[in-house]
This record gives sequence, structure tokens and C-alpha cells, in this order.
Amino acid sequence: MPKLHDFLHKGSFSSLQASLLEMNPVDLAQELEQMDRGEMMMVFRLMPKDLAAAVFTYLDSSLHQHIVESITAHEIRELIDEMFIDDAVDLLEELPSNMVRAIINNTSSGTRSLINTFLKYPENSAGSLMTVEFVGLFEDMSCKEALDLIRHSGVDKETIYTCYVTDKSRHLTGAVSLRRILLSDNDCLISEIMHSSVISVHTSDDQEEVAQKFQLYDLLAMPVVDREGRIVGIITIDDIVDVIEAENTEDMELMAALHPSETEYMKTGVWELSRNRIVWLTILMISATFTSMIIGRYEDMLQKAVLLAAFIPMLMDTGGNCGSQAATLIIRGMAVGEIHLQDWWKIVWKELRVGCLVGLMLGALNFARVSIFANNGFMVDLCVTITLFLTVVLAKTMGCILPLFAKFCKWDPALMASPLITTIVDTFSLLIYFAVAQMLL
Amino acid sequence: MPKLHDFLHKGSFSSLQASLLEMNPVDLAQELEQMDRGEMMMVFRLMPKDLAAAVFTYLDSSLHQHIVESITAHEIRELIDEMFIDDAVDLLEELPSNMVRAIINNTSSGTRSLINTFLKYPENSAGSLMTVEFVGLFEDMSCKEALDLIRHSGVDKETIYTCYVTDKSRHLTGAVSLRRILLSDNDCLISEIMHSSVISVHTSDDQEEVAQKFQLYDLLAMPVVDREGRIVGIITIDDIVDVIEAENTEDMELMAALHPSETEYMKTGVWELSRNRIVWLTILMISATFTSMIIGRYEDMLQKAVLLAAFIPMLMDTGGNCGSQAATLIIRGMAVGEIHLQDWWKIVWKELRVGCLVGLMLGALNFARVSIFANNGFMVDLCVTITLFLTVVLAKTMGCILPLFAKFCKWDPALMASPLITTIVDTFSLLIYFAVAQMLL
Repeated sequence: MPKLHDFLHKGSFSSLQASLLEMNPVDLAQELEQMDRGEMMMVFRLMPKDLAAAVFTYLDSSLHQHIVESITAHEIRELIDEMFIDDAVDLLEELPSNMVRAIINNTSSGTRSLINTFLKYPENSAGSLMTVEFVGLFEDMSCKEALDLIRHSGVDKETIYTCYVTDKSRHLTGAVSLRRILLSDNDCLISEIMHSSVISVHTSDDQEEVAQKFQLYDLLAMPVVDREGRIVGIITIDDIVDVIEAENTEDMELMAALHPSETEYMKTGVWELSRNRIVWLTILMISATFTSMIIGRYEDMLQKAVLLAAFIPMLMDTGGNCGSQAATLIIRGMAVGEIHLQDWWKIVWKELRVGCLVGLMLGALNFARVSIFANNGFMVDLCVTITLFLTVVLAKTMGCILPLFAKFCKWDPALMASPLITTIVDTFSLLIYFAVAQMLL
Repeated sequence: MPKLHDFLHKGSFSSLQASLLEMNPVDLAQELEQMDRGEMMMVFRLMPKDLAAAVFTYLDSSLHQHIVESITAHEIRELIDEMFIDDAVDLLEELPSNMVRAIINNTSSGTRSLINTFLKYPENSAGSLMTVEFVGLFEDMSCKEALDLIRHSGVDKETIYTCYVTDKSRHLTGAVSLRRILLSDNDCLISEIMHSSVISVHTSDDQEEVAQKFQLYDLLAMPVVDREGRIVGIITIDDIVDVIEAENTEDMELMAALHPSETEYMKTGVWELSRNRIVWLTILMISATFTSMIIGRYEDMLQKAVLLAAFIPMLMDTGGNCGSQAATLIIRGMAVGEIHLQDWWKIVWKELRVGCLVGLMLGALNFARVSIFANNGFMVDLCVTITLFLTVVLAKTMGCILPLFAKFCKWDPALMASPLITTIVDTFSLLIYFAVAQMLL
């Protein structure tokens, strides 16, 4: 890989330009991010317009602002016009509002009205993900006419591999792949080879739903329609891959009691990292007041049989782990569309049985362990074992009911994960523990 | 949606066949799964060969076995020949070995040797994901010749949208998109329009690595080369989307102390669900022996100040949550390629500072809470607060060091998540708690 840096220093701009054209835009963006800003701007200006626009979309957002501030209004206009609408809108959403106004005033009127429409779609909706650069065909075209149209207009389209067929008033009536067009006879009509049952989404549909449809049907692109069934744009698979990763990250963060953040870890400051963590930590710490209160209430009993305290951590950890296992399976199952709310009683019944089975095994194991290696007396061992069994059953049941309940309330099920369930199960397992101890000791 | 069922019962097979052709293979597979097995086989036999092969790949694996057992050797051969090699291999990997032998003996010799090659690639490697049905071009072809070749052979290819260019001995020398071919002049040579820096993977590369490259470069397909740089197959984006989801599910399961399973939750029996959970639960329960031992050792102190026990659950939960937050961010960051092992000291330093900041905030809050609402005496409150601070710092540090350490040892970092860290942090926080208490009380 020839170093761009060296060419710059030697002043050999023509070799630099030649090697720019050879490089992948993604790698190029990564190299630019390593340079100092003056050099970066020089290289950026040496790129042809289409390459510059492609590289720009892969750059870090802190560099976006720097570049937009460093180039002329005319250059901004060219850059925005060269970008796909969805990327342009993403750019505008991350810039400060005074800059956005300046940019929008500088774009051509067609682009401006498009951008304004896009900025109105709710965040994370199909509308905000889509792009308008698709190939639209009509039913009465022949394959040859369609191919000519694609050849003529295809350069500016995000994908030409799936084409969408509409009637005269832009209602979506079918879809046809470029492969099908190419492999059919020249005179064949589009209406003869198109599929009329097209999988589509509505502008206001949530991106998670869109991603699930993409996966279910193995699609490369999907049309987006408005309320009247007119096609307004398409979503392509590369954006969906990013959505899937972002949704998964968000779920994992929520499941670990983190406020979801879209910034990369290495680029997030200590202060922001702490802020994202402190809210849930505080809530969970305050909720732990219940456990303190319960132990406080049974102080006398604990005084008499202080070795009961020795098993509290083990009981609580096992309860937390059991709940977390069940919750993770249910949350993930709902996220990938394998588990549906209407099956709730089947799930609860299943977890109840798993809880009993796992509880029996762990209980037996623990009883054997404590009676062999420790010398606490039969009654204490029995008390710990009974509590362990009941805690496991309770944890498994709570672990599946809470995410299902969240789904029912239309909250994010990922909120009902390990940390919250642990806190709840802790409270109940202590209550059980002391109740059983009171009966047996 | 016309019910296939109704057509079957009325015996109107021609309407049934017509409506089969209208339907999406994915939906069709879902409808077949709802039918009883006799009806399903009737409908399956009414489908044209290519549709049957497409629907077959979307069916549940329990139905695969049923169908393979119900059709003739000749029909099996037709089905396998119609399927893409990667799907055929997936099918063979899930069937019992005597059936596999029968099927392989029945396929054509070309398919047989291909399948045998594929079965040798390690599971989850690029080789096991790829398919051999790609379009291969030569540098000295013109665009017109290339288009003719695509038209002639494209029907059987998994994708025709990216074509790969090789020299005479099948070494990969470039790639060119169908778009580029279509938008160029007929006489233009492939060597003039192809990209020569192609992103490719090696047959033995891990699928997680492959998925990261797909995401980084926004690709629709990627070539797979052998050790000599010869192209042996391609991987397409639809398979990568499945890989991403499967890897994410696996990570989440590991992070919740579950043995990863590839079966859907609703289709997994109680016994198997329990087995996937019991191993880690047992290990973690046994590890909790340490906490019991520590508390046992400080029994005398606890007897004197029994209200110390009241704060054990709060300290342990907060420690667990803090560790889990840090671990999740690091594990996820490494999985999506945003965090690299060589930055380990930056990460530890960052978490140390976050730990101090969060520890101070929680400590202050907790001190205020217990001194206002409870009446434990200043020394006990101070003891709890100091332990809380130290536990938070420890948990954050362990939470980042353990996944990094796992990565260093080439284990899966997801193993070092919440459950294991909680158990470790619990032990240390109890040691800190009693040490501080001994000093202060």
C-alpha cells in the first residue's frame, strides 16, 4: 500500500491522485482519519467528486464538521448533491443547526425539498432509513426498454439490482430483479416477469421490524410506501446490517443496566461513560433498601444463628444467574421474532418445569456439598436447600414473566434483564429464606 | 391470501399450482409447516423443481428429514442438484449419517465431489459458508462478451451482481459489478473497468471475521480464495446477516452463563433447556463457597455487629451491576471491532477513572441515605460507604480486565461477563467489607 503521506510530501500529486482511485473508499477514510487536518483537506480536495462523497460518508462525524467548515458553499452543494439522500440527511442530523441551515440554503431546490421531507420522518423509522434513488419501471415496458432506462439512469441509483414497478400514479404494483430482466427476452413485458406480491414497509414502520422482514425474506432491498400505497423510496441491505448491529448493541446495553449510547467506547469520555451508568445503578442501589430492611427485621434470628448469613451471597447469586438465563432467552427470542407474546402461557409453563428440574439438581448438589464439607447441622442445611429450590423456581418464572410483561406494555423487553430481576429475586429469596428458617430452626 | 388447504380439499390442483407460483417461498414454507404431513407432501410434489428447492431450504429441519424419507432417490437427486451447494451442505450436516451416505451416493458425480470438499471445511469457517455458484470472467473479455456469458450462465448463480475476474489459472485478479458492466460501452475491456484491489477472505477464516469485513466495506458478496490465491467460492450478504444474528445470540447466551444452543427456544425441550443452564449454574454455585467461607470466618464479628449483614446484598448487587456494565461495553466493543487488545491500558485507565467517579457518587448518595433514614451509627455507615466505593472501583476494573484477558488468551470474551465477574467481585467485596469493619469497629 503506497503511503499517501509520502506522495504529499514529495509533492507528486498526480501519483497521489492515481493511487486514490485505486483505493477502497473505506480504507481511504481510515487513512484520512490518521492524517493531520491540513493534509487531510489537501487529499480530500484532490479526490474526484464522486469518490469524495463516498469517502465522506465513511469519515468520523468530528471530521464531517471540520470539512464542512473548511470548504466553500459551492463545494458543499456539490458534495451534498453527489451523496445519496439518506447519507446527506444523516450528515445534517449530526451537524449544529446553524450549519444545517447554511447547507440547506446552498443546495439545489430539488434536493432541499427532499431533505426537508426526510428530516420530518421520526428517528429509527423506515422513512428515515430509506433513499429515493431507486429504479422505477412501468408494467407495459419491454425488457429492452427497461434495460435502456437502467443503463441511462442507473449511475445515480443506490441499487439497480431490484427494480420497482408502478402504475401511472406511482402505486407500487410489483418488483423485478435485474437478473430476471437480463435473463429474459428483449420483447418480454415487465408485467410478465415481475412479482406482484412485493414485501414492502410503511414510512412510519420501526427499523427493528424492517430488519426482521429483511432477514425473514433474504432481501437485498425493500420498497417503502406511503399510506396510499405509493412508493416513496427503498431501503438497502447495507443499511439494515448497520441497524441490526445497532439494535443488538442497544439490547445488550439495556440488559446490562446501561443507558444506550451511539458513540464508540474509545471515543466516549469518562464523564459521559459515568453518566450512562449512574442512573440505573442508583435506582438499583436504592431498591436494595428492601433487602436491608428484611435482614434488619430478622436481626434477632440472625443473631441466634449467624451462620445463616454465610449462605446469603450464594442464594442471591444463584437466583440472579437463574433469572438472567431465562430473561436472556426470552428477550433474545422476542428480538429475533422466534417468541411471540401470545405463547406466554406455554413459556411460563416451560420455565416453571425447567425451574423445578434445575432447582432439584442444584438443591441436591448443594445439600450433598454442605453436609459433607461443612458442619452446620441438618436443619440449617435443609433450610438452605429448600430456599435454593424455591429461589430457582421463582427466578426462572420471574425471568420469563417480566420481559413478556414489558412486551405487553409495549416497553423494551431488554429493560427487564438480569440487573432488575436480580434485585427483585433477591428480595423474595431473602423473605423465603427467613420464613423457612423461622419454621425449621 | 387464498388458503392452499381449501384448494387441496376441493381437489382443484391447477388453481393450487397457480397460487403456489404467486407466493413467496418464505411464506410458502411457513404455510407448509402448519399443514399435516400428508398434505404437505402433496403440495410439495405439486411445486416446480426450482420452487421446491427454494421452499425446502426455508423449512424447519425436522421437516427436511421427513421429506427426504418420503421422496424417491431420483427426486432427492433432482432436489440436491437444484439447491445451491452451501444449502445442500447445510442440509447434509443436519441429517443422520446413514441418510447422508444414501443421498451422496445418489447425486451426480460433480455435485458429490463438491459436497465432499465442502464437508471438510471446519464449521463456522468461510469455506463452510461459501457457495461455488459465482460468475467468473477473464480480463481480456469485452463488456458485451461478459454480458453474454452472464445471460447464458446466470440462472444458476447465487449472485450475478458482482463478477470475479481471474487469470487462466483461476487466480483472483479483480472484481467488477454488473452495474459497471451494464453502464460501460460494449467494447470496453473488463480489465479497464474492474477493481484490482478486491477484499477477499481465506477458506479457513472465521465467520465472525468475515462478517466484520462485510460490514466495514458494505459489500453484497465477497470472494473466498485458497492458499494459492485461487478463487474457490463466494459468500453472499444474506448468509452474513444470519451469521451476525447467530453470533450476537451466542454472545448474549454466553454473557448470561448459558451454553449456546442453535435450536429455537419454543422448539427446545425442558430437558435440553435445563442441561444448557445447569453447567454454569453449578460452577458458579460452587464458586460461591468462597463467600460462605469468608462470612464463616468473620462469624464472631458478625455476631457483635449483626446489622453489618443487612448491607451485604446491596454491596454485592451494586458490585455485580458495575462489573457487568463495564464487561458488556468491552465485550461488545471487541465483537464489533471498535475495541482492540493493544489499547488495553487506555481502557483500564478509563475504567479506573469511571470507577472512581461512579464510586464517589454512589458512595455519597448511599451515605446520605443511610445516615438520614437509618440509625446504624456513624462508623457502620462509614464502613459501608468505603466498601461501596472500593467495590465499585474494583468491579469496573475487573469488568474490563477479564474480557481483555480472555481475548489475549484467545478465549471468547463473552465468557467473562456478568455472572463470573459477579462471583469474583462478591468474594473481594466481602473481604474488603470485613477488613474495613475490623479497622473501624
